[in-house]
Amino acid sequence: MRGSIRLFVSVPLAPGEAPLLDSAQAHYLGAVMRRRTGDEVVLFNGSDGEFLARIDAVSARGGRLAVGRQLRPQSAEPGPWLAFALIKRAAAEFLVQKATELGAERLLPFRADRSVGVLPNPMRLAAIATEAAEQSERMTRPEIAPPAALADLLAAWPADRPLFAAIERRAAPLLRPCGRQAGLLVGPEGGFTDRELDLLARSPFVRAVSLGPRILRAETAAIAGLALLAAPSGEAAV
Amino acid sequence: MRGSIRLFVSVPLAPGEAPLLDSAQAHYLGAVMRRRTGDEVVLFNGSDGEFLARIDAVSARGGRLAVGRQLRPQSAEPGPWLAFALIKRAAAEFLVQKATELGAERLLPFRADRSVGVLPNPMRLAAIATEAAEQSERMTRPEIAPPAALADLLAAWPADRPLFAAIERRAAPLLRPCGRQAGLLVGPEGGFTDRELDLLARSPFVRAVSLGPRILRAETAAIAGLALLAAPSGEAAV
Repeated sequence: MRGSIRLFVSVPLAPGEAPLLDSAQAHYLGAVMRRRTGDEVVLFNGSDGEFLARIDAVSARGGRLAVGRQLRPQSAEPGPWLAFALIKRAAAEFLVQKATELGAERLLPFRADRSVGVLPNPMRLAAIATEAAEQSERMTRPEIAPPAALADLLAAWPADRPLFAAIERRAAPLLRPCGRQAGLLVGPEGGFTDRELDLLARSPFVRAVSLGPRILRAETAAIAGLALLAAPSGEAAV
Repeated sequence: MRGSIRLFVSVPLAPGEAPLLDSAQAHYLGAVMRRRTGDEVVLFNGSDGEFLARIDAVSARGGRLAVGRQLRPQSAEPGPWLAFALIKRAAAEFLVQKATELGAERLLPFRADRSVGVLPNPMRLAAIATEAAEQSERMTRPEIAPPAALADLLAAWPADRPLFAAIERRAAPLLRPCGRQAGLLVGPEGGFTDRELDLLARSPFVRAVSLGPRILRAETAAIAGLALLAAPSGEAAV
């Protein structure tokens, strides 16, 4: 359905349902994308699958859809988890958009000793993730956790999920674990403090890795690391 | 020299040289970073290597440095080439910054049939690449070519450098060629036209590859692909 408008809705979906559009969705469909009554859109809700729907009514204030046939059944979307130190607002928003496109399943912001940013409005981050899920044709949205302390993040981490900590100038390159979902941990611009490095070293599931010889901005490290974790592994014979 | 200010200068560098600061550099050093006469900075020029220098004078209008010892000799920085369809200004600027951080050696914008953007000011792109080279501790800046037609880009492409074309929903995943530098080609938001796909199919060095099951924005595809091309290959046994 490439080229179709794809919307996330937070109501049950099944043929015959008639979900209402909120004012933002109605504005987007009607005023921005110039869709009219009778036009088709694609809907998903993260639990019932993806459906074709028709616009029953759309105005500046709202609208109603008529749900038709299912296009894709719901599927789980296991993916890497991304733990990231609070960074500046624009960088954090960018990171949420790109991590969603690259298939991150959970986003876990944490307060680092050298964090300079504060978490942007959680509603705004959720809206950015939703839009990226719509456009990238995901069947789910990533879960965005509230900011935690690094120690609490590590204490709650599942022991069987490797957590790759991007630490500058470490020897081991980031290599994707065969057939396993993993996590990526990216620190703040100034790097981790000794106290934080100790915390990481004491966590048996943490592996310090390098993302290459250059110094990457935090959001660049997150995207590059997620691209590596999401990629098929192997070498091309060319 | 992490934490030091690192500046690109376009003059010869050797101990005893006394390069002048332009007004933008002087403003950055003095007003933004609060550096004073006697403070140290790191300089590179892409041809003579990296040097320690001392601020001899700095004011709102300019300044002078005194070059000291060499910190790193000049090295070649072979890296992937990135050919990208003209996209919107903010996305293009972002792409130039991230591609520089990820080690791209050449950036080759091209006009695609479905390009919606125009190339931003070349001076501004060069400034963004310079700043990213400074911050990521590169020894060179990437070369940014003027925009070309896709056919001309392909006609001038070296036959021994594989060019991976990111094409949605293709079967073959992007895998890094062993020990070879490659190129990445990323199309516009709407994808390539049939005419362009034919052009690509007739180029023996082009390999159509997929960057995964999701639909990526053009700049996300460029960053994810460069991260894969720049990464060491293999699998981790964890």
